[in-house]
Amino acid sequence: MDLANSVGLVERKYFTFAQDVPMRLDSGETLGPITLAYETYGRLNSDRSNAILILHALSGDAHAAGYHSLANYKAGWWDDCIGPGKAFDTNKYFVVCSNVIGGCQGSTGPSSLNPATGKPYGLSFPVVTIADMVRAQRHLMDYLGIEKWLAVAGGSMGGMQVLQWTVSYPERVRAALPLATTARHSPMLIAFSEVGRQAIYADPNWNGGDYYDNARPNAGLAVARMVGHITYLSEESMHHKFGRRLQERERFGYDFNTDFAVEGYLRYNGNRFTERFDANSYLYVTKAMDYFDLSNDYGSLTDAFAKSADVTYLVVSFTSDWLYPTYHSKELVSGLTAIGADVTYCNLKSSWGHDAFLLEVETMTGLISDFLERIVREHKIQLPPEVTPAAKPALDFSI
Amino acid sequence: MDLANSVGLVERKYFTFAQDVPMRLDSGETLGPITLAYETYGRLNSDRSNAILILHALSGDAHAAGYHSLANYKAGWWDDCIGPGKAFDTNKYFVVCSNVIGGCQGSTGPSSLNPATGKPYGLSFPVVTIADMVRAQRHLMDYLGIEKWLAVAGGSMGGMQVLQWTVSYPERVRAALPLATTARHSPMLIAFSEVGRQAIYADPNWNGGDYYDNARPNAGLAVARMVGHITYLSEESMHHKFGRRLQERERFGYDFNTDFAVEGYLRYNGNRFTERFDANSYLYVTKAMDYFDLSNDYGSLTDAFAKSADVTYLVVSFTSDWLYPTYHSKELVSGLTAIGADVTYCNLKSSWGHDAFLLEVETMTGLISDFLERIVREHKIQLPPEVTPAAKPALDFSI
Repeated sequence: MDLANSVGLVERKYFTFAQDVPMRLDSGETLGPITLAYETYGRLNSDRSNAILILHALSGDAHAAGYHSLANYKAGWWDDCIGPGKAFDTNKYFVVCSNVIGGCQGSTGPSSLNPATGKPYGLSFPVVTIADMVRAQRHLMDYLGIEKWLAVAGGSMGGMQVLQWTVSYPERVRAALPLATTARHSPMLIAFSEVGRQAIYADPNWNGGDYYDNARPNAGLAVARMVGHITYLSEESMHHKFGRRLQERERFGYDFNTDFAVEGYLRYNGNRFTERFDANSYLYVTKAMDYFDLSNDYGSLTDAFAKSADVTYLVVSFTSDWLYPTYHSKELVSGLTAIGADVTYCNLKSSWGHDAFLLEVETMTGLISDFLERIVREHKIQLPPEVTPAAKPALDFSI
Repeated sequence: MDLANSVGLVERKYFTFAQDVPMRLDSGETLGPITLAYETYGRLNSDRSNAILILHALSGDAHAAGYHSLANYKAGWWDDCIGPGKAFDTNKYFVVCSNVIGGCQGSTGPSSLNPATGKPYGLSFPVVTIADMVRAQRHLMDYLGIEKWLAVAGGSMGGMQVLQWTVSYPERVRAALPLATTARHSPMLIAFSEVGRQAIYADPNWNGGDYYDNARPNAGLAVARMVGHITYLSEESMHHKFGRRLQERERFGYDFNTDFAVEGYLRYNGNRFTERFDANSYLYVTKAMDYFDLSNDYGSLTDAFAKSADVTYLVVSFTSDWLYPTYHSKELVSGLTAIGADVTYCNLKSSWGHDAFLLEVETMTGLISDFLERIVREHKIQLPPEVTPAAKPALDFSI
């Protein structure tokens, strides 16, 4: 537990809305009430202009930084990049991380109780889109009293939400950081999603999505996670990390127990995933990603960005990311430059594959903090007064 | 059904051996009796020097060319490359395609009856290696009275068998054509194999491999096949083939039925696969591939090829094959040139991914037929007399 550079102890908060008037979804269906889980780090300045929204990937949640308890040593998923002196510097910025609807980490999703029936929604939960997720987050923004995000940032599915924010609500975003992402899910991505879903459907415990009173489809969900997990790595990083090393044995077992370290790693992480994720949410969130196509919703990418010319973009891709290869980001940059937006684009050399946006901390820190400082300068944002080390208590867990 | 350039009607043959003395396997266990399914096309010349062995990939079988009946319009899996005037020209060569042990297409495998118990082996079938597969094929070679293959050829797992042939029995191979393959399974390949196996284990019908009297683990096997299927394509070929096209609908369904054409394709092929493949065989054959590492068995790749300097190699990789990327073939070429072998290496530009070795017919035909003609010339092989069109019956189904 590295408290020195941490935002310290944090807690998950909840915002509930759409109690009386349900929210209209892209599908035409409505949803309400809706709860969003979120966390905040750092201090909001007096004119509420230093707020940054962080958006998470498929399996992420609102817990992006710090610790939930001193007994739980697991830091938030982007703790390397959010905190005092980090890429998203909590001495300067008020950082909000919002969960997504359809998920299972405190926000309304298929495992939530349907108030109309008193039972979990299961598959009666409406299919939501990335735009629906962002629509819900806009309610949270209003609730927090923030008129304009200084920046909206995220990788992978988080990056899709970033892009959608700048298309749905361009007037409410100063800067956008879509990282390791795409303007549309490619057929290969859809294919991998679908295989994960099929693994869940194939588990008899899934039972058409109605399993909350019974055994859960953990076997299917673990397989889905394993498929996904491979796609987040690169061949090179797997060579470094595992190679053909055997797991706790000196020679092949000539049986179907675990032979290779990479097999043990996948099995372990696949099973661990089932402790924190709901199989139905896996279906809904992957479906939202598959549906994501900015150009489809607006005719073309240029049309989609037509009103986004005032947003300043930092687009980042990674050389070994074969899930969202560089050309996805280049298409994005091409669409953005066509509408005259201010775009910085970096294709970072990395061997970590898609996961690089979580792992290339040093490079990202320089890149992101410089970019944010430029936005602050250009828009004359008044940052909160520096917290001097002397004024800081020895263990400051305040958020 | 294109009979004009086809080897015509063919039939699967069977060779059984190791009845009295079982064959020793790499694991130390023994297996016997062993049956190998195989097919032959073309005519053997008088000194039996024009025989070419074709080896198949994970899901292939002995039926490489021609048709099993006039009612069955499905040609053999490499019919584009095997036949009169094709890459492996059956007017010139006697082509043998052998199935593998551990499989389920007529050769001894986990679905075969264990003579000791009268029941299917299931998981009591010993784990076999690529070297064991080749060891069994060497018995077939002896049975066919062939002293030296003119060439041994195959892609993917077929290519592994090719390499193993030149290492295990270098004195019995003149030329080797390992296509779209590797000298060792990479951790990423192992990871994809393992996910497929996990999908099968996760199917309750699998029942520890004991299911031959009951419902089969088709749901798990279909998921395993879908995972594999994605890896055989390329992002580019999926864009060409499917893009984000919807399947028989004009807008999103906002449900979990099939939305995209690529989903329908995967589901269909995953389910079709269960009609012809045994789940236990999928476990055994993928395990054999994962264990494959020529350098591990012999210390280094150079040591592995120490006795193979007299074999002439044609190594082929494909630019968009991300399952066995080009550098795998380059390592192979590097090991082979180090021992002074005669190696031709081509990295063919193709957008078809790993499947390119089945699809880039025109380029392959030129490349392979020229290579084989060179071997014939250099070794003064006497080809059988040309079958002149006049002498050929209108519909010649002879093999």
